Amino acid sequence: MTNPASTVGDLRVNGERLWASLMELAQIGATDKGGVCRLALSDLDKQGRDLVTRWAREAGMTVTIDKIGNGFLRREGTDPSLPPIMTGSHIDTQPTGGKFDGNYGVLAGIEVVRTLNDRGIRTEAPIEVAFWTNEEGSRFVPVMMGSGVFAKAFTLETAYAATDTAGKTVKGELERIGYIGDEEPGAHPIGGYFETHIEQGPVLEDHGVTIGVVTGVLGIRWYDCVVTGMEAHAGPTPMALRKDALQVATRIMQEVVAIAHRHPPHGRGTVGMVQVHPNSRNVIPGRVKFSIDLRNATDALADAMDADIRAFIDKTRQETNLPITLELVSSYPAQPFHDECVAAVARAAATLGHSNMPVVSGAGHDAVYMARLAPAGMIFIPCKDGISHNEIEDAKPEHITAGCNVLLHAMLERAKVVG
Amino acid sequence: MTNPASTVGDLRVNGERLWASLMELAQIGATDKGGVCRLALSDLDKQGRDLVTRWAREAGMTVTIDKIGNGFLRREGTDPSLPPIMTGSHIDTQPTGGKFDGNYGVLAGIEVVRTLNDRGIRTEAPIEVAFWTNEEGSRFVPVMMGSGVFAKAFTLETAYAATDTAGKTVKGELERIGYIGDEEPGAHPIGGYFETHIEQGPVLEDHGVTIGVVTGVLGIRWYDCVVTGMEAHAGPTPMALRKDALQVATRIMQEVVAIAHRHPPHGRGTVGMVQVHPNSRNVIPGRVKFSIDLRNATDALADAMDADIRAFIDKTRQETNLPITLELVSSYPAQPFHDECVAAVARAAATLGHSNMPVVSGAGHDAVYMARLAPAGMIFIPCKDGISHNEIEDAKPEHITAGCNVLLHAMLERAKVVG
Repeated sequence: MTNPASTVGDLRVNGERLWASLMELAQIGATDKGGVCRLALSDLDKQGRDLVTRWAREAGMTVTIDKIGNGFLRREGTDPSLPPIMTGSHIDTQPTGGKFDGNYGVLAGIEVVRTLNDRGIRTEAPIEVAFWTNEEGSRFVPVMMGSGVFAKAFTLETAYAATDTAGKTVKGELERIGYIGDEEPGAHPIGGYFETHIEQGPVLEDHGVTIGVVTGVLGIRWYDCVVTGMEAHAGPTPMALRKDALQVATRIMQEVVAIAHRHPPHGRGTVGMVQVHPNSRNVIPGRVKFSIDLRNATDALADAMDADIRAFIDKTRQETNLPITLELVSSYPAQPFHDECVAAVARAAATLGHSNMPVVSGAGHDAVYMARLAPAGMIFIPCKDGISHNEIEDAKPEHITAGCNVLLHAMLERAKVVG
Repeated sequence: MTNPASTVGDLRVNGERLWASLMELAQIGATDKGGVCRLALSDLDKQGRDLVTRWAREAGMTVTIDKIGNGFLRREGTDPSLPPIMTGSHIDTQPTGGKFDGNYGVLAGIEVVRTLNDRGIRTEAPIEVAFWTNEEGSRFVPVMMGSGVFAKAFTLETAYAATDTAGKTVKGELERIGYIGDEEPGAHPIGGYFETHIEQGPVLEDHGVTIGVVTGVLGIRWYDCVVTGMEAHAGPTPMALRKDALQVATRIMQEVVAIAHRHPPHGRGTVGMVQVHPNSRNVIPGRVKFSIDLRNATDALADAMDADIRAFIDKTRQETNLPITLELVSSYPAQPFHDECVAAVARAAATLGHSNMPVVSGAGHDAVYMARLAPAGMIFIPCKDGISHNEIEDAKPEHITAGCNVLLHAMLERAKVVG
């Protein structure tokens, strides 16, 4: 055996093995259109967990399951007293999900361990791969359930009590599939956390760049806005006597987008859901309810966008004399990643010769909760047309491999190779 | 008996009798909330028709039913060879309709005849009161079915074949309730036509005026507009890389209203129906379909509005590079009323001392089709808050009486009292 430390720089994962594992896991819940339906805590999720933990044991790892069903696959370090350098993600999918979202992050971690095993490389700190329960939130809410309980964002009891549309509880389903463990969620030190993930957006593809060095996750503000006008017949009601709720609502919808443009480069503003009442061709709308989604890279910027939409609605209320309500329904703080972890990802990408750029994550990930507990960072790779949460979700094998190599070297930098 | 001609100017209808008839007819299909549900060709419609024709016979009128179920209640003139001066409307209602829409126009006609009978007044031309089948179009389309067949806007066969949601046909239901007559629709001369109706809008109430002298009915253009963007996750997709169908659609929705304001005083622009796909809070809309309703007092003005919306959509398509389609789904020409009939209504209102103003009708009425066949006019009275097609539809007894007196004198001017 060669001296591991002297050759670490040349170390590369086995991309074909990783791809083969991704494709094999994707068979569990495979859909006709090439996607995956493997809802959290379903029979298929159990099969996926069984396969992943089998692979982990075959790679010499120990398996610990906590009370919310999170799995920790551990490769011991030379100093077991050190907290592990962890990677992970989730293996549950959306009902019409793809092969890569989440699954890639877990299997990339296993490939890192397989690669270290191949070369007999030992690390001072242990290496762990986590799979977090119910990240998607399709069957049970809240989303990012396992990592959220782990980070004490909400209680185990809250998570246990969540029910699906058939009335089944998280606790009951965890018991049923045999993935309710003994360990208290969170009673598990973490020395550092990395997560590889497809971008789920178009930025890397648009720039022709392989690796996104994720600097943080956008803060999110979700609102419901309701404009109340006066329902009236579109024919006999002159313009001057109308109280057209949609005409007023569309002004606010336009402003949502304008606010995002006024807070670049990461400001985002979306109206995704609109309900018009009574929604009849020849009736002036009497009531319009719509969602507002504002995001930005810091809470200060998200707060500035919040202030802008409130001011605009106040002004519109005064100008139109119509009741307009704005209710904040959810708020997620912005989560910058740790400077050293971000730098480790950038260094690894540069060393490996992969084009890379700093990016933000517009969507939530388990890494957001881990960043509350330990230094954390993320690695993005491009996905085709920026599409995810869709059966046509796709990623190139060379990007899958590249992201995993970046993960390997970033983790080794933190876990320290034994020379 | 006094000489009728010498006292015609003093002639007034019996407002209490008219009101009592309206309230009695409103019992047939009365709803808990004070409205009426008497759908066309239902058992309740039959009961309503039976009551109205009984009242007509009691007033000495003959009853003729045509093949589409229109009823013609005739009081003979001294010169039976003259075409009748006709009034009328409909007695079918919306599912959650009111007591006055349509019903008022028919019963006002019967009250005119009762008043003439009370005073023994004879007219040269016959007086007729029509009730037109299925004006509302709630159960069967097209709307204004009876008057439309009468005016040959569409064929009897088309109307017969129309089905309700249970699959029952107009022809079958006409036979079932016993209101399929022998007379060919349209084979019935008309010397002039007047229709009294609640305004169904807020203009008269807003002006504090009793009588609306209706100068015509707005032309209508109905469109479906579809904007196709790219569905994408609201978080990871930066503003510059979005194809937000709703953001583009709301620009067009704003323009619909702006176009109406640019074509005063009768231009009207309404977006009543909006469908957003996939209509999810954190997904940028990939497709938005919405209705456009443009109206104006002349076809030239409606055409100008049509040109404006097409030009704006062309410009928007070029600016955004997104597919935008605009489909004209219905078009109804503007229908000015006859100068002499309009003048007769204005004169009658003035002679009676009722405040009055010229108004347009934004909604369709049976009078629109009659105006294609004979000199025609309409008389509007205020309705509470401009609301109709609603169980809370309401009108004041003094306005009901005033409108009927105007009808009486306008009809007598055309039918000529025998002195």
